[in-house]
Amino acid sequence: MTIETVETHKAHGGVQGVYRHRSAATGGTMTFAVFMPPQAAAGPVPVVTYLSGLTCTHANVMDKGEYRKAAAALGLAVVCPDTSPRGEGVANDDAYDLGQGAGFYVDATEAPWAPHFNMWTYVTAELPALVAAQFAVDPARQGITGHSMGGHGALTVALRHPGRYRSVSAFAPIVAPMQVPWGQKAFPAYLGADPARWRGHDAVALIEDGARLPEILVDQGTADSFLDGQLKPDLLQAACDKAGIALTLRLQDGYDHSYHFISSFMADHLAWHAARLKG
Amino acid sequence: MTIETVETHKAHGGVQGVYRHRSAATGGTMTFAVFMPPQAAAGPVPVVTYLSGLTCTHANVMDKGEYRKAAAALGLAVVCPDTSPRGEGVANDDAYDLGQGAGFYVDATEAPWAPHFNMWTYVTAELPALVAAQFAVDPARQGITGHSMGGHGALTVALRHPGRYRSVSAFAPIVAPMQVPWGQKAFPAYLGADPARWRGHDAVALIEDGARLPEILVDQGTADSFLDGQLKPDLLQAACDKAGIALTLRLQDGYDHSYHFISSFMADHLAWHAARLKG
Repeated sequence: MTIETVETHKAHGGVQGVYRHRSAATGGTMTFAVFMPPQAAAGPVPVVTYLSGLTCTHANVMDKGEYRKAAAALGLAVVCPDTSPRGEGVANDDAYDLGQGAGFYVDATEAPWAPHFNMWTYVTAELPALVAAQFAVDPARQGITGHSMGGHGALTVALRHPGRYRSVSAFAPIVAPMQVPWGQKAFPAYLGADPARWRGHDAVALIEDGARLPEILVDQGTADSFLDGQLKPDLLQAACDKAGIALTLRLQDGYDHSYHFISSFMADHLAWHAARLKG
Repeated sequence: MTIETVETHKAHGGVQGVYRHRSAATGGTMTFAVFMPPQAAAGPVPVVTYLSGLTCTHANVMDKGEYRKAAAALGLAVVCPDTSPRGEGVANDDAYDLGQGAGFYVDATEAPWAPHFNMWTYVTAELPALVAAQFAVDPARQGITGHSMGGHGALTVALRHPGRYRSVSAFAPIVAPMQVPWGQKAFPAYLGADPARWRGHDAVALIEDGARLPEILVDQGTADSFLDGQLKPDLLQAACDKAGIALTLRLQDGYDHSYHFISSFMADHLAWHAARLKG
């Protein structure tokens, strides 16, 4: 496993880097960002993975997420993957919510997506192993978060790896993709027509089917234009209530779906993760 | 004076907006960003103007500057203008350091720049009046800062308006444009061949010619690739020492010229401004 350093910058006492590598999971070159806090000079630090939303690359949250100051203060590494395979020879769609930039954190089984769109394997296996091998992080102390489609990714990845992630949060996540237009478009395209094959990638369905986490933090803006049609946090609340999962769902008055919302609550989320990862 | 709202987002309890207006100074449409902190709901707040560097628009610092959290906590408005006139009919140059994106905060007297490149008048007169008329800011409590070319702008604007700006700082400023390649290219193009006409736009020359400020804060990264060739903070230090200006020049180990440097010290700068503006 080798990685190429695209750029590094000292930031808030740590190092923000962008890296590139040849991915076996996606069959192409993937780019990701890692922030290493100053505490990493003294030994492995806890690591939080941030999964991004539709249309994003690793760069959106790196530029606009405002995570470095809090991560440096808390001693957290932050890993930011891309949202899909990209490039020539990789299938795509003209729509913003399918294809490149819209991997939905699944391993596609259907044409034309199956050869490259294996973001589930990428974010749950290949990238964590690469990061653990190349950076001073402690794989025993991992947290995961994400925004929108990436919030869906964070919840489903954590629900299916209950021993691995000690802390889980999300910003305006898609909590029940099977029940909303984004998922109802992407899941048949990537996973085929049988809804039974979608349940492993739907947080609410996973909870209904028995998956458990001790606790989850979710922030959701009340002025988010996707709130009623695509996000539906009440469905997650109902599933968690029934399953005994301690969901902290905070409705943030007047915030929209943008990085202005994410950055406003990023420090809160990282503090939440740090409290659970540093024990 | 009317402005058009391009977008607004709730952020860190305040409002980040982008606005557009017809500018008399530049003879075209100008875009700028304003962050209003939550304290503005209770009455006018102090205002800090941030002038950006070469190639930037209002958006670079808005996206990457990480100023909102500190500004919201301190109760400061932050105004971020563009760096030049833009658009069809506005002169330009293929180089990144002349023309659109490189206004150098002067009023051009030379062809082809003179009709639109009047950023001095724009940032010292037109925009402050517009902001004072349209936003809940207190013009008696103004500070100014900037990066690189914008640091040059902040220093020269403040030196020539000693009663107006109660606080002045800069990130990696061009302190003596007459003595470095960027200025030696831009000043003849915009202001003509006579160096006597450049001195009013050179911080070191202004101080040599008698301009005074009580104090200035400057941060400069030691890994900045422009440090030796274009920035030369030692020239500002020498001029301030001779003139009795209290310059706090901090050499920040390992930081480069990017927004990773700016964002790392933004909260420090805003706290510096707030301490001088809130009295």
